[in-house]
Amino acid sequence: MDKTFSPILWEDNHLKLLDQTKLPSEEIWLDCTTPQHVADAILCLAVRGAPSIGVAAAYGVILGVQGVAESELENAFHDTASFLEGTRPTAVNLRWAIEQGRQVFAKTSNQGTQAVCDALLDLAHRLKAQEIASCQQMGQFGSELFDDGNRVLTHCNAGALATVGYGTALGVIRAAWENGKKVEVWVDETRPLLQGARLNSWELKQLGIPFHVIPDNSAGAIMSRGWVDRIVVGADRIAANGDAANKIGTYSVAVLAQHHNVPFYVAAPLSTIDLDTATGADIPIEERNPDEVTNILGQQQITPDDTLAMNLAFDVTPNDLIAAIITEMGVLKPPYTESIKDAFERAQSN
Amino acid sequence: MDKTFSPILWEDNHLKLLDQTKLPSEEIWLDCTTPQHVADAILCLAVRGAPSIGVAAAYGVILGVQGVAESELENAFHDTASFLEGTRPTAVNLRWAIEQGRQVFAKTSNQGTQAVCDALLDLAHRLKAQEIASCQQMGQFGSELFDDGNRVLTHCNAGALATVGYGTALGVIRAAWENGKKVEVWVDETRPLLQGARLNSWELKQLGIPFHVIPDNSAGAIMSRGWVDRIVVGADRIAANGDAANKIGTYSVAVLAQHHNVPFYVAAPLSTIDLDTATGADIPIEERNPDEVTNILGQQQITPDDTLAMNLAFDVTPNDLIAAIITEMGVLKPPYTESIKDAFERAQSN
Repeated sequence: MDKTFSPILWEDNHLKLLDQTKLPSEEIWLDCTTPQHVADAILCLAVRGAPSIGVAAAYGVILGVQGVAESELENAFHDTASFLEGTRPTAVNLRWAIEQGRQVFAKTSNQGTQAVCDALLDLAHRLKAQEIASCQQMGQFGSELFDDGNRVLTHCNAGALATVGYGTALGVIRAAWENGKKVEVWVDETRPLLQGARLNSWELKQLGIPFHVIPDNSAGAIMSRGWVDRIVVGADRIAANGDAANKIGTYSVAVLAQHHNVPFYVAAPLSTIDLDTATGADIPIEERNPDEVTNILGQQQITPDDTLAMNLAFDVTPNDLIAAIITEMGVLKPPYTESIKDAFERAQSN
Repeated sequence: MDKTFSPILWEDNHLKLLDQTKLPSEEIWLDCTTPQHVADAILCLAVRGAPSIGVAAAYGVILGVQGVAESELENAFHDTASFLEGTRPTAVNLRWAIEQGRQVFAKTSNQGTQAVCDALLDLAHRLKAQEIASCQQMGQFGSELFDDGNRVLTHCNAGALATVGYGTALGVIRAAWENGKKVEVWVDETRPLLQGARLNSWELKQLGIPFHVIPDNSAGAIMSRGWVDRIVVGADRIAANGDAANKIGTYSVAVLAQHHNVPFYVAAPLSTIDLDTATGADIPIEERNPDEVTNILGQQQITPDDTLAMNLAFDVTPNDLIAAIITEMGVLKPPYTESIKDAFERAQSN
């Protein structure tokens, strides 16, 4: 996997997405030619991970306005933007990307459909490039937190697939590796959709970084044996006070980390931090179809018929369990209300 | 599921085991006519759960001596006993049942093959009846720890399937329910072999007790929402100081319980407590085939080829995370070294 790999491509006036539901057994690219295609891909998690969802949506709005009559442009854009914005509630990058699209539209809508499309495409390309550059930058900052030989546990996939390219949590691990630190990775399999077992394995194997997959419930036992030196995860939304929503199970890992005195890091770009969300209590948590729990990857029913299940997609890790938030503006430390505010100020003055 | 249900039956001079690897989709009874059949059933977890393994082995030794010539009796018995004793290392009930078989053999071996078989069958029937009676008794003691309306989380299956009949952890929940307490159950699915999703669901559905299955990694999030009032699990071996080995993931649940001030109970008969094991550090932890993690129930590969996985079958919960141990001799409280010793003394004087 080279540094330019991305699961999100724009080719021949449409969006191509590497279908993450089919990995690792099949590498299939979806051709999205309508906003509905993009929404379907987001909803079924063919594209997933907060930064990837945001960038896919930024490209997706173009599909709703390409070639429409000037008289329909305003409605077509806003309908598409709202439609895609509503696909998933937790990740803030989606709203953030759509909001930037709205600003671009406001500036260009009087110049006609083609100009709007050109400007939206410029924006999507720019957001994509920014996300990848942010990952590489946070990788360099985060790499400093790792020692040679560290055994690093991660939960869910916050790699190149989730983040348009390079990765956040997996990017930090990758940067440490590329900087010559011989790290090894514990991969939480991440039920119900097994993003760890399927996607981290797929990425780490290509990167040549040694790893073991474990059932999520093994993390505590592995920590109690002294086998975990660092933990790093991504985030879907970080509140202004540092509370971080991420894939269900992250919170359990954070509590276990505290119990075992293992540093617990969150790696995410500033685009994942929402200053309008005061605390984790204000982050909406998506509840997904229970069939994802009772029927593994839609292929294997594991419970009796009509069994009820609870399928929370995310949980919130409170800021006091987070040793640092690794961003493209540096490694933020508690108190996060101050360090986050400072990072945004530095980013704006750049 | 009535009170007499058991997954372990002796019929027509052989052992019948309800194949727990096939539940809930199929109810298939295995006919075990040789010790190898029983060993295979133990190794592949067709029969599982510390008390069920012990009783299956008690019946299993009979299959190694039935009909053998008097001159072969001594070797046949001891070879079979050692063979079955070696199938799984963690559960102490297996060693305990085999040891009782050795004592019976020592007393009857001079009376010929048929007398030995009759005595071993008496023993196996007695152990089975004792385990079920113990479960029902601990159910009554444990029921007192639950309030009407409690939401109870359990991990792995410690129900009738695991314990010859009625259940330990699930038996306590069942007794509370039968005593009129409207409890609801959170069922950890229990990766990798999904004993919670498959077997607890199968039992609870028949009992009519309401439940939801959750991915193991959701337990922390569910507790943080205040949705869990009690936790009760079984055990595969309890050390003299109260440290308890149970299915992988139990320790993580116990740490989360402490963090959220939720009482964490272990329900197990005295046959699961090993006074010869001083602390949890002395309990051997079985490591099983990594394929159980990377390939779900042998049917669905979830990782790239050649992915390494770590498959610890059990973990140890230290006694300071356990609010009480529920036994057939009453509810034991810390300090466990004293309360366990006292329970054994009371049992012997009965």
